[in-house]
Amino acid sequence: MSEAAPSELIKWWGWGAPGKRLKLGPEAGAMLSERLGEAEPTQPAAFEEVSMPAARPLPELLARGIGSANVATSHEDRLPCAGGKGYPDLVRMRQGRLDAAPDAVVTPGSADEVNRILQACAATGVAVVPFGGGTSVVGGVDPYAGSHRAAIALDLRRLRHCEVDPISLTARLGPGLRGPEAEAALAEHDLTLGHFPQSFEYATVGGFAATRSAGQASAGYGRFDELVTAVEMLTPAGPLATLATPHTAAGPSLRELIIGSEGVLGVITDVTVRVRRAPSQRRYEGWISSEFEAGAETVRALAQADALPDVTRLSDDEETRVSLALSGVSGAKQALLGSYLKLRRRSGGCMLIVGWEGDAEEVERRRGISSRILRSTGAVKLGGAPGRAWNRGRFEGPYLRDELMNMGYFVETLETSHTWSRYQELYGAVRRALDGAMTAQGAPGIVMCHLSHAYRDGASLYFTFISRSRRGAEIEQWRAIKRAACEMIVATGGTITHHHAVGRDHAPFMRDEVGAVGLEALRALKDQLDPTAIMNPGKLLPG
Amino acid sequence: MSEAAPSELIKWWGWGAPGKRLKLGPEAGAMLSERLGEAEPTQPAAFEEVSMPAARPLPELLARGIGSANVATSHEDRLPCAGGKGYPDLVRMRQGRLDAAPDAVVTPGSADEVNRILQACAATGVAVVPFGGGTSVVGGVDPYAGSHRAAIALDLRRLRHCEVDPISLTARLGPGLRGPEAEAALAEHDLTLGHFPQSFEYATVGGFAATRSAGQASAGYGRFDELVTAVEMLTPAGPLATLATPHTAAGPSLRELIIGSEGVLGVITDVTVRVRRAPSQRRYEGWISSEFEAGAETVRALAQADALPDVTRLSDDEETRVSLALSGVSGAKQALLGSYLKLRRRSGGCMLIVGWEGDAEEVERRRGISSRILRSTGAVKLGGAPGRAWNRGRFEGPYLRDELMNMGYFVETLETSHTWSRYQELYGAVRRALDGAMTAQGAPGIVMCHLSHAYRDGASLYFTFISRSRRGAEIEQWRAIKRAACEMIVATGGTITHHHAVGRDHAPFMRDEVGAVGLEALRALKDQLDPTAIMNPGKLLPG
Repeated sequence: MSEAAPSELIKWWGWGAPGKRLKLGPEAGAMLSERLGEAEPTQPAAFEEVSMPAARPLPELLARGIGSANVATSHEDRLPCAGGKGYPDLVRMRQGRLDAAPDAVVTPGSADEVNRILQACAATGVAVVPFGGGTSVVGGVDPYAGSHRAAIALDLRRLRHCEVDPISLTARLGPGLRGPEAEAALAEHDLTLGHFPQSFEYATVGGFAATRSAGQASAGYGRFDELVTAVEMLTPAGPLATLATPHTAAGPSLRELIIGSEGVLGVITDVTVRVRRAPSQRRYEGWISSEFEAGAETVRALAQADALPDVTRLSDDEETRVSLALSGVSGAKQALLGSYLKLRRRSGGCMLIVGWEGDAEEVERRRGISSRILRSTGAVKLGGAPGRAWNRGRFEGPYLRDELMNMGYFVETLETSHTWSRYQELYGAVRRALDGAMTAQGAPGIVMCHLSHAYRDGASLYFTFISRSRRGAEIEQWRAIKRAACEMIVATGGTITHHHAVGRDHAPFMRDEVGAVGLEALRALKDQLDPTAIMNPGKLLPG
Repeated sequence: MSEAAPSELIKWWGWGAPGKRLKLGPEAGAMLSERLGEAEPTQPAAFEEVSMPAARPLPELLARGIGSANVATSHEDRLPCAGGKGYPDLVRMRQGRLDAAPDAVVTPGSADEVNRILQACAATGVAVVPFGGGTSVVGGVDPYAGSHRAAIALDLRRLRHCEVDPISLTARLGPGLRGPEAEAALAEHDLTLGHFPQSFEYATVGGFAATRSAGQASAGYGRFDELVTAVEMLTPAGPLATLATPHTAAGPSLRELIIGSEGVLGVITDVTVRVRRAPSQRRYEGWISSEFEAGAETVRALAQADALPDVTRLSDDEETRVSLALSGVSGAKQALLGSYLKLRRRSGGCMLIVGWEGDAEEVERRRGISSRILRSTGAVKLGGAPGRAWNRGRFEGPYLRDELMNMGYFVETLETSHTWSRYQELYGAVRRALDGAMTAQGAPGIVMCHLSHAYRDGASLYFTFISRSRRGAEIEQWRAIKRAACEMIVATGGTITHHHAVGRDHAPFMRDEVGAVGLEALRALKDQLDPTAIMNPGKLLPG
């Protein structure tokens, strides 16, 4: 496992290894132009021309504890840690004008070094932004100093241990392990974490825990917060560690306080997770439902019968249609799908990807149970091809976003959840809000949605929305559309985030989410654990 | 549903309806005498002769908000709320000498009235002990005023609403609903909560949430904390309510802060839970494992194959033997069991009760999968009779304790959990600690244990221990034995409680459980939500 710097791993202005690109076909481009109007292509600025504030001097104390080799202050080091991968982050990066950047990237090699850095920063008034994969899409790693003299990005890439307990099927993982690194380390023991969010290729274990990440197979393996059995965090007030027992009834859950704390209370240095035997078989299929509401009823039936496939992803009509067009499925293949559906007296409809993982017998048994429910609720089987296509493209969303931005489009996602009884109400309300807000911003758009995390009592809603970008007013456009959607979510009783976390973007809505007393409770915790407020300023809690 | 006062529902000095008694047969008595030595029977004091501190006067403010009819100060009202149902509570009750009692029992009829009471108490310096079923076995409802002028028991028996969302399969429940009341209300909709702890007959929904209760079918339905989707709590600082969505990634979990808070932060006034269709079939069976270690390996195999029966309860050799003797299984029947086991080349061994609940097809399918694993790991099937016997007696533990105390025995339970890799180590260590401590207290005893909550990564350990009581020094004897066990649990890395909660008894071990920084975090939370520290003094947090 390499300790490559972020700039070697991932494009500083987008997603994926430098050089790797997802090209859209001419048909996709034509479809977008037809739906959204002609857009003006853009290109990212040159790396060396990106302007950002000069590095402020750091107290000498800081380097003393860990060696100056691990305190980097060059343009090349600072730039890739100057933001996450949200739309506004990428806009700023591509335009080459950053209003903030970390004054140094500090790379501790042990929990002890993390502690020394935190103590030095607390003593000298330097803000600390914990930095894992840097994949936040909600401004979670934006390098703000708050009221402090400087801010460092605390890059955790050197903390990558993996200790397996093969009897208890748990693993103690370092926060800096990226998704593929954690899986590779576990694969040596024939184990898997089974946590595959869209950000899998770059996001880290520490980030999964700090943001309550949910993977695409959450129904089977559990969300990341459900996988964590114990966690250790270093706070400016000292170490916080929970017992590695399967459960405790000893009071309010400190584990559940640390999970989701997004770096504002301290730095997660150790995460113990439940792991599983690596599945010998993964079987993904496509089914189709006549409408999103009917598809959601199918998923509800699966969930309430404890028969959810490990992967369960229902796209609405628009996402089904647009995804097919964008994925480069040829006109001929689309026509073939059309005939297939016609045979089954369906036209259009909503794609439902389902998948089971495990040993062959287990997969077949569970597939049989799910399939009966799928059929009895009106879903029609398309077969393995759409499932395999989904699996090939399961991590491609952010590559696609880069291309859309290159083409001159605004593209953003947001996610929420609600109970089944209010699910369609929330779906409709957010769609209308996004439609209205994009139009109000001068460019009518496409709103797509899918359900990808289902529970007995409800499910998530994940919206993707695209329109022409307002050249020169990209951030204002984004902010207006985002605000309209969030206000509608709050008004309808949904949660402001199902698995992207709060970061900077959702912080203004935390009062609606947890109430005034809840907010004061979180602030009291922050004051106790981080009394000089050096940890990740501006995130999670509203200013 | 009646609003019966505690004294009408349950013996003030023990368990069960006044008049209901579990009689032990002569063989059981003989076995105990043989094992533990002859004990001197005791009887509870007469109700009217129990001495307790006179009721301190309460500020007039208190009654003003809710009507004086709901503020009771008679001996009859105060006595049943003067403690929970732990061994030391019962010793004090039976001896008729209480060193503390609530100065009044206050019975609000709405959340609004709860709020008025809290505000009045905070303004006038009166401690509030939330009182549900009063079934705490860890001193969780002991009526201490702390540094305040008086203490009230806040009896929640009038808060018993039940609103079902049949689409989302959730129910919003009042905290005062006792287990059977909640089940009866849900049964009208053909639903069940499926939460059946041993205290089911008397414990309440608010108590389940406040203490992280775990039911006997936790593997199937989930622990209570896993069933809760949203919760509302009134704190002296104001209301705290979490969103009723299936999941949120918006920061640290406030729901998980309220759950397990044991009344020290506020009063839980509403609990929304996931419910299920009532099962049409419940099938319980007995199996036998050669040893506790082999049986635990069987349970581990079931858990790690996702094949845990809904009820999974493994007794060690001693519990198997003693339970058979105490349950009044006749010598003839025991001999029959002996022959049966001999036929299968077993003698003695560890009883494993397994049970499946659901519709007939589901039960058979899951039973088939579990049974293959049971057999392949060496367990031997005894059939339905032991399962049915367990089901008949599943709530009898506390009745049996009353009888043992009548006979002059010390009897106590405690529970912990650990990962599978350290499970046997913890089992052996706690057994030795209990054995040694009972002997050091002058009366060698019986130590029994069972596993009743299993997870992929580990399981709970539930110890029951009996010896002759030290007449006149019952509390000292209890304290010494309890301390020895808790110190051993802490030294071995187990949790101080898996599902009984912390209360007063475990509070001294909270520093070991959550660490110094964890304790300060909990204290900061308490200071924020309960600034005058009126809520349940002396519980959860060490003094």
